Amino acid sequence: MIIMEKGATKEQVKDVIDIVKKHGLRVDVSQGEFLTIIGLIGDESRISFANLALMPGVKDARMVETPYKLISRDYSEPFIGKEQSRIVKVGDVRIGGDEPVIMAGPCAVESKEQVFRIAKEVKAAGARILRGGIYKPRSSVHSFQGLGSSGEAEAREALEWLRAAGHEYGMPVMTEVRGESQTELIAEYVDILQIGSRNMYDQDLLSRVGRTGKPVLLKRHFGASVEEFLSFSEYIVAEGNKDVILCERGIVPVGKGNSYTRYTLDLGAVPVIRRETYLPVIVDPSHAAGRRDLIFDLSCAAIAAGAHGLVIEVHYNPKEAVVDAKQMITPDELKDVIDASLRISKIINDYKKKSS
Amino acid sequence: MIIMEKGATKEQVKDVIDIVKKHGLRVDVSQGEFLTIIGLIGDESRISFANLALMPGVKDARMVETPYKLISRDYSEPFIGKEQSRIVKVGDVRIGGDEPVIMAGPCAVESKEQVFRIAKEVKAAGARILRGGIYKPRSSVHSFQGLGSSGEAEAREALEWLRAAGHEYGMPVMTEVRGESQTELIAEYVDILQIGSRNMYDQDLLSRVGRTGKPVLLKRHFGASVEEFLSFSEYIVAEGNKDVILCERGIVPVGKGNSYTRYTLDLGAVPVIRRETYLPVIVDPSHAAGRRDLIFDLSCAAIAAGAHGLVIEVHYNPKEAVVDAKQMITPDELKDVIDASLRISKIINDYKKKSS
Amino acid sequence: MIIMEKGATKEQVKDVIDIVKKHGLRVDVSQGEFLTIIGLIGDESRISFANLALMPGVKDARMVETPYKLISRDYSEPFIGKEQSRIVKVGDVRIGGDEPVIMAGPCAVESKEQVFRIAKEVKAAGARILRGGIYKPRSSVHSFQGLGSSGEAEAREALEWLRAAGHEYGMPVMTEVRGESQTELIAEYVDILQIGSRNMYDQDLLSRVGRTGKPVLLKRHFGASVEEFLSFSEYIVAEGNKDVILCERGIVPVGKGNSYTRYTLDLGAVPVIRRETYLPVIVDPSHAAGRRDLIFDLSCAAIAAGAHGLVIEVHYNPKEAVVDAKQMITPDELKDVIDASLRISKIINDYKKKSS
Amino acid sequence: MIIMEKGATKEQVKDVIDIVKKHGLRVDVSQGEFLTIIGLIGDESRISFANLALMPGVKDARMVETPYKLISRDYSEPFIGKEQSRIVKVGDVRIGGDEPVIMAGPCAVESKEQVFRIAKEVKAAGARILRGGIYKPRSSVHSFQGLGSSGEAEAREALEWLRAAGHEYGMPVMTEVRGESQTELIAEYVDILQIGSRNMYDQDLLSRVGRTGKPVLLKRHFGASVEEFLSFSEYIVAEGNKDVILCERGIVPVGKGNSYTRYTLDLGAVPVIRRETYLPVIVDPSHAAGRRDLIFDLSCAAIAAGAHGLVIEVHYNPKEAVVDAKQMITPDELKDVIDASLRISKIINDYKKKSS
Repeated sequence: MIIMEKGATKEQVKDVIDIVKKHGLRVDVSQGEFLTIIGLIGDESRISFANLALMPGVKDARMVETPYKLISRDYSEPFIGKEQSRIVKVGDVRIGGDEPVIMAGPCAVESKEQVFRIAKEVKAAGARILRGGIYKPRSSVHSFQGLGSSGEAEAREALEWLRAAGHEYGMPVMTEVRGESQTELIAEYVDILQIGSRNMYDQDLLSRVGRTGKPVLLKRHFGASVEEFLSFSEYIVAEGNKDVILCERGIVPVGKGNSYTRYTLDLGAVPVIRRETYLPVIVDPSHAAGRRDLIFDLSCAAIAAGAHGLVIEVHYNPKEAVVDAKQMITPDELKDVIDASLRISKIINDYKKKSS
Repeated sequence: MIIMEKGATKEQVKDVIDIVKKHGLRVDVSQGEFLTIIGLIGDESRISFANLALMPGVKDARMVETPYKLISRDYSEPFIGKEQSRIVKVGDVRIGGDEPVIMAGPCAVESKEQVFRIAKEVKAAGARILRGGIYKPRSSVHSFQGLGSSGEAEAREALEWLRAAGHEYGMPVMTEVRGESQTELIAEYVDILQIGSRNMYDQDLLSRVGRTGKPVLLKRHFGASVEEFLSFSEYIVAEGNKDVILCERGIVPVGKGNSYTRYTLDLGAVPVIRRETYLPVIVDPSHAAGRRDLIFDLSCAAIAAGAHGLVIEVHYNPKEAVVDAKQMITPDELKDVIDASLRISKIINDYKKKSS
Repeated sequence: MIIMEKGATKEQVKDVIDIVKKHGLRVDVSQGEFLTIIGLIGDESRISFANLALMPGVKDARMVETPYKLISRDYSEPFIGKEQSRIVKVGDVRIGGDEPVIMAGPCAVESKEQVFRIAKEVKAAGARILRGGIYKPRSSVHSFQGLGSSGEAEAREALEWLRAAGHEYGMPVMTEVRGESQTELIAEYVDILQIGSRNMYDQDLLSRVGRTGKPVLLKRHFGASVEEFLSFSEYIVAEGNKDVILCERGIVPVGKGNSYTRYTLDLGAVPVIRRETYLPVIVDPSHAAGRRDLIFDLSCAAIAAGAHGLVIEVHYNPKEAVVDAKQMITPDELKDVIDASLRISKIINDYKKKSS
Repeated sequence: MIIMEKGATKEQVKDVIDIVKKHGLRVDVSQGEFLTIIGLIGDESRISFANLALMPGVKDARMVETPYKLISRDYSEPFIGKEQSRIVKVGDVRIGGDEPVIMAGPCAVESKEQVFRIAKEVKAAGARILRGGIYKPRSSVHSFQGLGSSGEAEAREALEWLRAAGHEYGMPVMTEVRGESQTELIAEYVDILQIGSRNMYDQDLLSRVGRTGKPVLLKRHFGASVEEFLSFSEYIVAEGNKDVILCERGIVPVGKGNSYTRYTLDLGAVPVIRRETYLPVIVDPSHAAGRRDLIFDLSCAAIAAGAHGLVIEVHYNPKEAVVDAKQMITPDELKDVIDASLRISKIINDYKKKSS
């Protein structure tokens, strides 16, 4: 990390950047009103910070030993502020502010009728983003893999439905990119690219979706520590794309016997991530619980823990759903979740303001 | 489980119980206004349910295959109701009802002055139960083990302080029983016997505290599934003691690298336990987080998830504390936690009533 | 799974295949001397097995409910035998037979000299396959990512060195494919494509390497159950590529505090995998231990557990290595590992033959 | 840790010990031919090492920051040697030497006939220690808890059978102490006191069995790190009882889905423990696997990893066993396990001698 002096000239900044690039690293430049910070991307051990510190216009140059830097609150605090998170803007939706944003929709896009009907109903319940899976990651090659897996034509058709349904009801849309080769196709159609839990460790995929410049929602792997989660999110930001939304969706249960939920929702990760990074953090209670009767409780808890939003699987008739039928709630149930979330969020914000 | 007919006589009930005992099992009899249910304690495979079903006065007799039965909601629902939990009464405090109960105090009792001062301040902040450790479980034999470990005289002195401080400020008191041989001594002085996380699997200790008849707060082991937690709680109830409070306090983190918290709080366990059993369930955010700056967030989330209360470590000067200094909050911070908890609890109760 | 009658004609087999494909599934046909088995790839719930069973030439048609089928021992036993595994042939090396195959080489290919020198020395010690990383998966974007990450020209140069070193010393070579877009480039140069632990869940990558037709070594994810490991390996086999070698390389440690190894080697997985599938299974003690002083012990244990081979990181001067310096052993140490492995393997084989 | 000068007098040693005790700590004195080391037991932060270092006869006095000290190889190396472990002598059996010691017997003692017959057959197969459970720890209060749980008379009778069977066939005997109150009763009858996995964290129980002076076999908790395992073993040694045998018996599996074994055997723990402490370490493959067809493979692997012995559940007719029927092997199978173990052990010892 290199901090330039207040009056550093453009040439001085450029000279520093040139030196860094000559050593095979890339840079991330944050330009504030008074302050310029140059973050380094790559192996910092290849460069001499002592020499950099002597260059004209440089106030401070030091190695950062953490596995993530660009997303860290330390690095961004001069530009953002102590309690605030980065606002990721998608259409007219602002993710990362005081009001929680609810993303909702079917697990898998199944038909035009299905996605339009669900879009209409989740919008009425208060959702702001429409989600729906087209390429589904599955543990078994013998399970339904989403309409997108049948071929490009089928994928485009399903992407069209999703985009059109979002447009019709005024919601930006999100779907999952499961493999590198789907990236550009999906980026043509949707507003937020989702990386699923199973792919969190796939650094080449993260770099590729980062390069599209589109907002990315990154789900934590169900076996990853928070540190690993943040380290891998840095692969996206290292491509110059800071519009990353982090999503906690449950980790593998401990112990022998039944935990009664598919995964264990780690809500402590929410305030931790808010302190470690400036990225917004949301929660997916549907995949964590794997059962609809817990969605209300877990959603309220997530918001109370400080989450900037929720992603929830919704179906007008959950039993009909091809995938994840057990964890879908109805639009009516979604309405209660959203109402309660907004009420709890207001209480939490009272105390946050008081303490800051 | 044996369900007696509505008009079954006392003799008929006694005959059934006699048969069960002759096979080496014990019984738990629940006598409602109209209904008598006889729960069996022990290995049910040693008895013929077909024969029991033919006895006079017996309406239904069937084997229950789950590892816990007496605490299950199925078994108790005829007596309790669908949403309610058992109310554990301790002095004039009711644990398990609509209003969350906050238990607070120092990690370890260090001196008479310390425990009196903390008692006064947590009471003023809104706490209802005073907690303080006298026998401390520790990973290393070389760490401070609590005043009780110095000998019986020291243990009695510390227990006196705790009881007197509770009495002075109108709060029932709770401390941990770490080993079987401390059980009766501690039961002389305190209102709630706590079993710590490390001892959850110690079935002989659970049976022994169960036999005191005092309310027991059982903490989940940090490596135990919810099913194991509930199975082991049944060892207490099997002694005829239904005043058991279950406490979620965090499980071991997943993955490589830093999770930034000592343990991972499993708040999904709260609504799960409310659906599986009729026992009240509370949350300990202090040990889960291991850092004071997360206590507010985790407490709010716990209440939003449906917890019946919280146990929080408090010290007027956290840095002075001999054990767990990093996770203690001040009485002022406790006040905010309690205020926010009560406000969130009211919102949650609105929706619970609506849905029931 | 469809089993054809002994005398079924080619036309009958073709008719069955056509019906299956019409339902959107793919097939895997195993043709033995007397027996033809048609395995289905995809969602079997879309097809009527009752109807299939009525077709001419069909002896039995039934749904297989497990997440993996094609690799299961049940499915392959008619063709393979009870104790044997599939022999994956790479050049003149046979992986999966009685004699364990040792794969060795540097963690990362660093220079032509380095890879040639190591190739020479591991060959002399008894290794049969040369391994070396060119695209390195790393938790932090700020760590060295392997020579391949600098660009295609650099990748080709490093791949040339590896291939040439293997050729010079008579060893087939193996390197890791980290992202989909590297697949074809790497397949041009090497004999075995390795999928690293972090990418085990990346189904699109697995399908893509499967389609190259080259042998694939798949490492278990450090957070995956054996069932998940086997389910994901089926993504490769479903592309018609049965030359899959499974590799256990350690799972995340349990509990609080130091486990003294980077990962926990799950050697019980070795005999389990030998009973569940016909694929050969090998062990990587280097990444599991993360320290060189345990490599001998873990290697002996792996072979005693029934592993078909080992992958071991070796460097003539471990301290010099850019990545994983702590876990590399010297060629001299490798010689002891290989000698002891071959001696233990002979003992084990005595008992295996006796019991079969 | 305090190291006395070579010529230090008894009075000087006594003076140091007196000072230490005055600060509320206990001591462990190791007296070699030339060297006296005084280990401290308790909270070392209460004492000034600078002052101790100035006392007459003291060569070095320093705080040891690890959670275990008395069992560490550092502390004991002057007395033991680099590769050797402490030999725990039980009758004429030496545990911790070059030859692995096999402990075998039924999961639960069921009758006099059963224990005598199994004793005879495991002895013939080569076992050296007879094991059998009398107090069984169980996850459910509704499962069979062992004959000892029926009352003291029944416990004594079963203990008599076990002792007599061991005597008849020349084997020392071992059984589990499940709760503190059983300690002295069991110590009257058996040669080795076993602490089961579920009780590893029960420090009061560990101290109590330590005080009997009898050899103790301590099983690792299935959720404990190696560091925790070693830390808790120090509770026994701190009572002046160094005859502790550590036993790896499997940890909880990772991931979603089936691992195909009840627990995951952590064989890497074996060489780690041999490097960290001087205590002998053995392996229990029966509870780890939970299935008899893996016992041979896991036993061979354990010995190859350096284990000083094995504990194996054996029954002449496994299907008849009341508890753990699935994991018992027959005496004939045990014979193969022991033969292969001794052969592998010889190979391993060749290399150990060469490298030391």
